[in-house]
Amino acid sequence: MKIDINNILKNSVIENNITISGWVRTKRCSTNICFIVINDGSTINNLQCVVDLKCINNNIIDQINTGTSVELKGNLVKSLGNVQNVELKVCEISILGQAIDFPIQPKNHSYEFLRDIAHLRFRTNTFNAVFRIRSHISFAIHEFFQKRNFIYLHTPIITNTDAEGAGELFTVTSLDITKQKNIDFNDDFFGNKTSLTVSGQLEAETGIFGLGKVYTFGPTFRAENSNTTRHLAEFWMVEPEMAFYNLHDDIKLAEEFLKYIISSTLEICKNEIEFLDNKYQKEKNTSLKEKLNNVINNDFQKVTYTEAVEILKSSPENTTGKFKFKITDWGVDLQSEHEKYLTDIYFKKPVVVTDYPEEIKAFYMRMNDDNKTVAAMDILFPGIGEIIGGSQREERLDRILNVMKKRNMNIESINWYIDTRRFGSVIHSGFGLGLDRLVQFITGMDNIRDVIPFPRYPKHCEF
Amino acid sequence: MKIDINNILKNSVIENNITISGWVRTKRCSTNICFIVINDGSTINNLQCVVDLKCINNNIIDQINTGTSVELKGNLVKSLGNVQNVELKVCEISILGQAIDFPIQPKNHSYEFLRDIAHLRFRTNTFNAVFRIRSHISFAIHEFFQKRNFIYLHTPIITNTDAEGAGELFTVTSLDITKQKNIDFNDDFFGNKTSLTVSGQLEAETGIFGLGKVYTFGPTFRAENSNTTRHLAEFWMVEPEMAFYNLHDDIKLAEEFLKYIISSTLEICKNEIEFLDNKYQKEKNTSLKEKLNNVINNDFQKVTYTEAVEILKSSPENTTGKFKFKITDWGVDLQSEHEKYLTDIYFKKPVVVTDYPEEIKAFYMRMNDDNKTVAAMDILFPGIGEIIGGSQREERLDRILNVMKKRNMNIESINWYIDTRRFGSVIHSGFGLGLDRLVQFITGMDNIRDVIPFPRYPKHCEF
Repeated sequence: MKIDINNILKNSVIENNITISGWVRTKRCSTNICFIVINDGSTINNLQCVVDLKCINNNIIDQINTGTSVELKGNLVKSLGNVQNVELKVCEISILGQAIDFPIQPKNHSYEFLRDIAHLRFRTNTFNAVFRIRSHISFAIHEFFQKRNFIYLHTPIITNTDAEGAGELFTVTSLDITKQKNIDFNDDFFGNKTSLTVSGQLEAETGIFGLGKVYTFGPTFRAENSNTTRHLAEFWMVEPEMAFYNLHDDIKLAEEFLKYIISSTLEICKNEIEFLDNKYQKEKNTSLKEKLNNVINNDFQKVTYTEAVEILKSSPENTTGKFKFKITDWGVDLQSEHEKYLTDIYFKKPVVVTDYPEEIKAFYMRMNDDNKTVAAMDILFPGIGEIIGGSQREERLDRILNVMKKRNMNIESINWYIDTRRFGSVIHSGFGLGLDRLVQFITGMDNIRDVIPFPRYPKHCEF
Repeated sequence: MKIDINNILKNSVIENNITISGWVRTKRCSTNICFIVINDGSTINNLQCVVDLKCINNNIIDQINTGTSVELKGNLVKSLGNVQNVELKVCEISILGQAIDFPIQPKNHSYEFLRDIAHLRFRTNTFNAVFRIRSHISFAIHEFFQKRNFIYLHTPIITNTDAEGAGELFTVTSLDITKQKNIDFNDDFFGNKTSLTVSGQLEAETGIFGLGKVYTFGPTFRAENSNTTRHLAEFWMVEPEMAFYNLHDDIKLAEEFLKYIISSTLEICKNEIEFLDNKYQKEKNTSLKEKLNNVINNDFQKVTYTEAVEILKSSPENTTGKFKFKITDWGVDLQSEHEKYLTDIYFKKPVVVTDYPEEIKAFYMRMNDDNKTVAAMDILFPGIGEIIGGSQREERLDRILNVMKKRNMNIESINWYIDTRRFGSVIHSGFGLGLDRLVQFITGMDNIRDVIPFPRYPKHCEF
């Protein structure tokens, strides 16, 4: 009977005549005995296998390297070591696939090196843990919304040109652009200029008028030349949108959401978090688990933008010129260093900043009664900065049209969006979460390129 | 207390002083009384609300049309009609948003008309049901795989140019192609020519060597000029890939998978299926639920390609020339009409065709011992044709290199993929499911453009 290592380690049953298949992580031989450590992908943990060299042909042992795939038959016995409860006493070995000059050896490789061989890095403990956690987080996101009667909406990836002006877009075309002299988008597949989506929000908003509460979960794109540890050209976003929710309801949902995902991951991915925490403590002298528990166990601090600016203005960092961008006037956008001060130094927990000046926020955010701030909210996490951005949406037709005119937006091109305000408009809210940043926060990985299997960033589209 | 219509109908509790908010579906008034039917998006079912015209200002009633959003306060009472158990006796009405000249009226609109206003069609019963079911199917897909210890892998959307030659690709570029004269992809965002993915399979295969069993679930793209009821330029695919699975294991998993999704949808989306079944029976004189149960309650019929060709050759359709493509020789690809004959006429249930001729299948499929067929499988569903295509993958390095050479493929460009066969290769299998076709099958919708919120097809990229 062939059995998963996951089940063997979970049940720790002593059994005879079992078969496992997997990949060799390490091999250590003395005169009479070999220890071979096997991972089969069913868990981040490995099974130690003990080979009595009197029974097994030396020729076979010689062919076994790190990376070799093997099938082993034998008996499970109580382990004498203390890492695992059981180990496999091997009676028979078959080589499935050799691994000569396998680039990943049992030593510490740099993340940069492993990124260049992203197709092989799944076979390391770290990336095994990271991608298991990413998978669980994704599932927990669906669970959270499905339990609450949200409808998962597949908003389009290829869209009409940017209405919002959110930034640099990737163009999508089926024209042979190397041959064509004068590009005419009338001849293109869709008959007009199209690009990759930067957000599914506007389409999601149209959904709530029939479905009440919806969420998107899919890839989004920015053609920004950002070479940082926090930016990807292709990343995954989650965007819930809810009819009859005001900003207060929106913040409440977002806080519940983040706490749910982190709690669920701590519970279900116990082994993976444990492994990453050990690494994290060694590298950073602080605990990953503590960082995560700090989010779960604290009420998020709510401050208005105006309050935040006052705090920042009178902070020692501002008065002594430590901030690169000195806060002088109300109305300026907050920089990473300011957010970091609020979360890491002043409040020492997640912070929700609300009611930003209208000018620095998107056109669809609801104007407050003061006529100068909008019902926006950003959730800032210690160490990582903005993790969620959301708002109550401007549901009043005249108001939203005015803002669009003021900003010289092309109203005609998103008339369909404006229809939501023409026919049965209701108050509603929503937010956006960058999945990759959340995975970064939960796994403690420094570079966002190491939390998505095949990262896309300037000059990099391998695999 | 504000309450969801879903909860009101589920619990059928008689309660006073409740508030609901939603959109008016119909209004019907006599001298003293008005019946207003409300949907709030929490369920496909509506709540009937009864307005005593002696208590409510006529001016307000006049402003209420189909599509108007309202807030109603009142008392729940036992319904005298028999459609719902309870109805709302209204004490107070507030208009939230008017809906003057709302394009969707309480009558039968054509699907073509509604497709042109896809941003509003969520507000119809049919699309409410379809998109609820699509959401549930998507969740059930995650549930199925997560329960079985599969890891959800986000394979890239923007990829290096097509290695497999799977068809027409959309190019992705950040160059200003209207201005540039000589396109040089070295100057492009990624430094080379990139396009939208047609499949995540090759990347998913690299994942199993560390993670054992993985699945992808994301958008894929074809720039094919297909104006049919079965093709989209942008569609969602699910692609599981499993180490140590042979073709038999692969088929078993796929059959379990399809049965799980359909059973789960019948159970969880009872109301939605009920609604669509009524429609289906009227339009097609046959039952949607029976069609779905036929899949759940039957073992899928397994036949080899060779057997299928024999059946088709001697079918009356072939001998009397009814087939547009007459089956004469072993080796030809099966057409829709042939698949339809197998599922709808000959076997009258889902059919799994295996072991196709090598020439008509993809390069990565495993060569059988006969050296002329490959370990491929297609699952065909009554009425809809191919719903799943899969195979055991060719794990032998020399074999896969030979096939690629024979097909003049650019080996250098997917050397990373070949690495999986160089380092610890193992037998493995996988399959691909087109989500949109499955949603089409389960909802009984005729046109694939009506099962995705904003369909993309030739000359259509609105919203």
